[in-house]
Amino acid sequence: MKVHYECLSCFITQSQKISELATEDLEKRKEAMIVAAKAVQKYYHRNAVPAIGGSLLFLELYRLLENDDPFKEYKRISNKLAKKVVEELRKELKIGLKDALKLAIAGNVIDFAVGYNPEKIEEDIEHRLNEELYIDESEELFKSLENAKTLLYLVDNCGEIYFDRLFLEKIEEAYPALKIYIAAKEAPIINDATVEDLKEADFGKVGKIVSSGSRIVGNPL
Amino acid sequence: MKVHYECLSCFITQSQKISELATEDLEKRKEAMIVAAKAVQKYYHRNAVPAIGGSLLFLELYRLLENDDPFKEYKRISNKLAKKVVEELRKELKIGLKDALKLAIAGNVIDFAVGYNPEKIEEDIEHRLNEELYIDESEELFKSLENAKTLLYLVDNCGEIYFDRLFLEKIEEAYPALKIYIAAKEAPIINDATVEDLKEADFGKVGKIVSSGSRIVGNPL
Repeated sequence: MKVHYECLSCFITQSQKISELATEDLEKRKEAMIVAAKAVQKYYHRNAVPAIGGSLLFLELYRLLENDDPFKEYKRISNKLAKKVVEELRKELKIGLKDALKLAIAGNVIDFAVGYNPEKIEEDIEHRLNEELYIDESEELFKSLENAKTLLYLVDNCGEIYFDRLFLEKIEEAYPALKIYIAAKEAPIINDATVEDLKEADFGKVGKIVSSGSRIVGNPL
Repeated sequence: MKVHYECLSCFITQSQKISELATEDLEKRKEAMIVAAKAVQKYYHRNAVPAIGGSLLFLELYRLLENDDPFKEYKRISNKLAKKVVEELRKELKIGLKDALKLAIAGNVIDFAVGYNPEKIEEDIEHRLNEELYIDESEELFKSLENAKTLLYLVDNCGEIYFDRLFLEKIEEAYPALKIYIAAKEAPIINDATVEDLKEADFGKVGKIVSSGSRIVGNPL
């Protein structure tokens, strides 16, 4: 993705979140934000790739704040919550391949912020299940999967990976000959899922876990 | 106010809002945000006064975007909405001095964002009227006004000035000997009220309108 006018605000909002999650010390947080203010012109410019620029900025703050994974607890809670929701959905509903695709999309849309009411998530998600997709390319996807030998599935944030896992199970059932690879980040960057998170969520059962080889949000290819 | 760790994020959010209000052109907005990313280390530092640093940054963007008052329409709508709400409140309620103080506080709390439902504002505000103040120094204030010869009242944003005006009317009734001065910004800066806004809202009837002499958010004294 190319840099957009809104990216700077996102860089700074995430930087603030990093400083808040990394330390309770207000002076330390201020120091981090002053470093961010100095650094940001290096990472936000006309030719910046926001995923790379942002990540380099965030990692600079991780080093300064001496915290290698400020989102650790946030991710733990997101994963716990999503896991519970997916388990409930499995009990309540008979989930087909297309449903699981919709759930993976819904999981991507909903932000698993700390404190989000799990009851409400279930309701929101069931609501989405009953809606049509606004852009629906599922038939094309399923046709491609029929003809494919391998699938490389790139995961994004913690929390939503539990919805991805459900979708991958359904893919595995529908296309048993398919060789599935699931890629996550090599090491922690904001709330992105890491290889460790995939192991923890038992993705080994639905495919082969691989590392994206980077510690950059998104997946520069 | 001294600089706080959250000020950088506020600088950037306001910069983005300025670029959005000043132009529809996405390239122009991006250019403005790149300038903001370069400039921000000059305005956000350990010894910065946020009201001054922020304002200098915003005015730099005004020049770049060739728009001397990007919030003009936003302020017009805020004023129109607040004026209507205050008129309705006058009709519905008998408002005493202490009520008017509470309304001036409520007017400060509620953000007159474009699209805010006026029906809801009235409800919110009436709700606040029935609540006790969390920190109540009104008695001290009223005692000071009794002994004072002059009052300098500093206004803040457009919209809420209509609540300030109601409060000033009640002050004038209660302390007829008091000489009242009301200060607003000399020229537009974000959504702060200017001397022109005070004239438009007929503040001349409740006191003498004066300029803060600056184009800086807040009032550096």
